[in-house]
Amino acid sequence: MIIVKVGGGKKINLDYVCQDFASLVKREKAILVHGASAKRDEIAKKLGHSTKTVVSPSGISSVYTDEKALEIFLMTYAGLVNKQIVAKLQRFGINAVGLSGVDARLWEGKRKRNILIREKKKVKLLTDNFTGRVEKINTELIKLLLNNNFIPVICPPAISYENEIINVDNDRAIAVMAKELGVEKMVVLFEAPGLLKNPKDEKSLITHIDKNEIDKYLKFAKGRMKKKILGAQEAIKAGVKKIYWGDGRIKNPISSALQGKGGVIS
Amino acid sequence: MIIVKVGGGKKINLDYVCQDFASLVKREKAILVHGASAKRDEIAKKLGHSTKTVVSPSGISSVYTDEKALEIFLMTYAGLVNKQIVAKLQRFGINAVGLSGVDARLWEGKRKRNILIREKKKVKLLTDNFTGRVEKINTELIKLLLNNNFIPVICPPAISYENEIINVDNDRAIAVMAKELGVEKMVVLFEAPGLLKNPKDEKSLITHIDKNEIDKYLKFAKGRMKKKILGAQEAIKAGVKKIYWGDGRIKNPISSALQGKGGVIS
Repeated sequence: MIIVKVGGGKKINLDYVCQDFASLVKREKAILVHGASAKRDEIAKKLGHSTKTVVSPSGISSVYTDEKALEIFLMTYAGLVNKQIVAKLQRFGINAVGLSGVDARLWEGKRKRNILIREKKKVKLLTDNFTGRVEKINTELIKLLLNNNFIPVICPPAISYENEIINVDNDRAIAVMAKELGVEKMVVLFEAPGLLKNPKDEKSLITHIDKNEIDKYLKFAKGRMKKKILGAQEAIKAGVKKIYWGDGRIKNPISSALQGKGGVIS
Repeated sequence: MIIVKVGGGKKINLDYVCQDFASLVKREKAILVHGASAKRDEIAKKLGHSTKTVVSPSGISSVYTDEKALEIFLMTYAGLVNKQIVAKLQRFGINAVGLSGVDARLWEGKRKRNILIREKKKVKLLTDNFTGRVEKINTELIKLLLNNNFIPVICPPAISYENEIINVDNDRAIAVMAKELGVEKMVVLFEAPGLLKNPKDEKSLITHIDKNEIDKYLKFAKGRMKKKILGAQEAIKAGVKKIYWGDGRIKNPISSALQGKGGVIS
């Protein structure tokens, strides 16, 4: 089984992704996990509630999710983009079923109501935050679907142990999912050819990362890319043997990534 | 098996509905179908794309769905309200799974791209409309879920034979679903005590309608209520033996309806 994760960037070509994913599904069992950050930011701005990014004292940036932001998150991830992907896959003959981490408690975790952030060199406490981290995967529904030729298309948010809807990080959630499902291969697509030494130079691709040396590469990562590397590290710890990074903007993005064109962690 | 359909009006109390639905599920197999019209209208207005209602030459009003309206529909129905209901049911111990009619081609039908409308006494043709009518239910996933103790929470939109996402009428869709699943009982909840002789007088409740005389009651119905009556008529034709109407604003709305308090068609 393979997990394919596609980011929610504006330049991601979902038609290409879905077409290639449909070919993949004909060869092996696969799950598609997706983001929708560009759509979320666009709608949030239009609704006068722009996405607010905060930085932790240790320098990891993430999105601050108040109640209104959570509603926008649900609308764009679980509503708009999830169902658009499902319809695209149906067009390519794949019987896709769209789910969020809330459905059947698929992605379960702990809510982190209060978070510390760094703002103008000061550390500040934010309360009433609807984010958390996925700790548990309820795999029963995923297995039931796969065994009956339905293809799961999954996105955040997740659900807390206390049944609150929580925004979670996709890259770290798929690491937990890989572990629980015994997945050994993962494809991660985003708006770049792969992990770059210099984010401004698309030719500075790092073609291979030794799975025991992921730490070293954290220094190349900027902003949200740091989370992707942390996610990769967690996935490797969880038992994933190979992570293929790839360009979600190009034709045949998944097969190109599987050919090692976007960099491989192994 | 029983289908419970709850409208998307602003005064509907989803906490009461979910609590009562959770008790019902412990007694018999049930599916929840929901709307989200109030939320859709609110978000549409905020996004500067207010919901546009049109009236057919025969006097039936419906929503005109262009591409942008369809996006707002997906966001509010399949995203926001669907997942909020799923989380509420999880809170009451029900392992709910939220689905739209697009997922697994659950609700399939014909797109009605061009529609005739009456505007200021003139008949006009609207093109590029994303609505349609559900004609086919792909029941496999619903049965699979129910047989494995997952409770489906379903909402529009549906999918066309050509894989386009289409807005469809809920009341008419559940009639087709009842037929395909062999459902004999339906509960329909909305923002009134039941079908009223005089829509301004909540005491003018019609307590019983003979299933062979539904036609007669069309004259009491105003606006969208006409669709509900047409839906009821189709459900009866499809083999449903009893339709219980009820008030979605009150505590224990489903059990009250099943006690006949909101009017029964049989």
